[in-house]
Amino acid sequence: MMNVAHAPLLTAIVTVIALLVYYWTGYRVGQMRGKHGIKAPAVTGNMEFECAYRVQVNMLEQLIVFLPLLWLSNAYFMVWPYLTGALGLVWIIGRIMYAIGYVQDPAKRSMGFIISLLATLGLLITTIYGIANAWMAVSA
Amino acid sequence: MMNVAHAPLLTAIVTVIALLVYYWTGYRVGQMRGKHGIKAPAVTGNMEFECAYRVQVNMLEQLIVFLPLLWLSNAYFMVWPYLTGALGLVWIIGRIMYAIGYVQDPAKRSMGFIISLLATLGLLITTIYGIANAWMAVSA
Amino acid sequence: MMNVAHAPLLTAIVTVIALLVYYWTGYRVGQMRGKHGIKAPAVTGNMEFECAYRVQVNMLEQLIVFLPLLWLSNAYFMVWPYLTGALGLVWIIGRIMYAIGYVQDPAKRSMGFIISLLATLGLLITTIYGIANAWMAVSA
Repeated sequence: MMNVAHAPLLTAIVTVIALLVYYWTGYRVGQMRGKHGIKAPAVTGNMEFECAYRVQVNMLEQLIVFLPLLWLSNAYFMVWPYLTGALGLVWIIGRIMYAIGYVQDPAKRSMGFIISLLATLGLLITTIYGIANAWMAVSA
Repeated sequence: MMNVAHAPLLTAIVTVIALLVYYWTGYRVGQMRGKHGIKAPAVTGNMEFECAYRVQVNMLEQLIVFLPLLWLSNAYFMVWPYLTGALGLVWIIGRIMYAIGYVQDPAKRSMGFIISLLATLGLLITTIYGIANAWMAVSA
Repeated sequence: MMNVAHAPLLTAIVTVIALLVYYWTGYRVGQMRGKHGIKAPAVTGNMEFECAYRVQVNMLEQLIVFLPLLWLSNAYFMVWPYLTGALGLVWIIGRIMYAIGYVQDPAKRSMGFIISLLATLGLLITTIYGIANAWMAVSA
């Protein structure tokens, strides 16, 4: 059975999975470099390569927001301890959909983008709610 | 009244504000994509778009340094517990000035850049001081 | 004499050093901007500048994975408390080799890349091992 002490471990597991998915997006960039003969330091010259590269860059841009909110939510949001990890999993699913859609056609990246954006918004709300509660608790 | 238990909450609030400012820089990139018809995966082709994009990239480059130093300073610097959060707020102000200045004219980005750099330097000093103090405490 | 309480401080020191090395890669980009007259927002136009820029971008791409794994390993891996900090130092050495090699010749970046990748893999293993152990401990 799981208990409340598992919640931060779920957050840690979600973090590791998110970083592995990010590594996969970077691995695909390296593959496309080889396939299309794009020599470093160039990052342009072939559409398929550029899409793979944008997927990696965009995931980096989102990770810098996602990871701090994930751990702030983990630290401060106590109402449903598993919600933080669940939102993190939704974020990962959205990122994988974004990555697969983008290389098929840049116009197909929207759905995954929106799913991970909503998960980030969820973590923003749980974080703000948690901080507000903690503020009132230490002010009392 | 605020007490010492509010200090980490101020750090958390500063983190959330910094991430929201970062989202705003990313939102402007999307706006400029639409305004100037820059289709993904392209990231060049219009000066105004490129400036907005560089603002977002530069904030990402700074966030990866700022957030770890902010939380290390929060954890280890105990002399004035509110200084960490205050330096974080100065950093955010510098970043907003940088973002607004850059899109007016790339040459106008210096002031905001220097302000946030000084705030980062402040956090580096409080972090090193805090770690040195903690090292002596556990060595004693 | 060092004791177990020094281990998280070593992790903090490794973090500060890694961020300083990252700042150095960014400083070199600014230098190359001046030397070759590459005006912002441009990020192309000279091979030496582009190599310096790719070094900074690549370190950012690796930091977003390295720092979370470093601190997860620090939090959960208890078998040899100093291993986390030691792997972090190896990662930094690999990054410095990568930075120096890349600007000499992009083909020379492989060795440093592989060293820091192996250090990241080490942190991934210690993190997963630590989380698995903690999971069993709280499930018992």
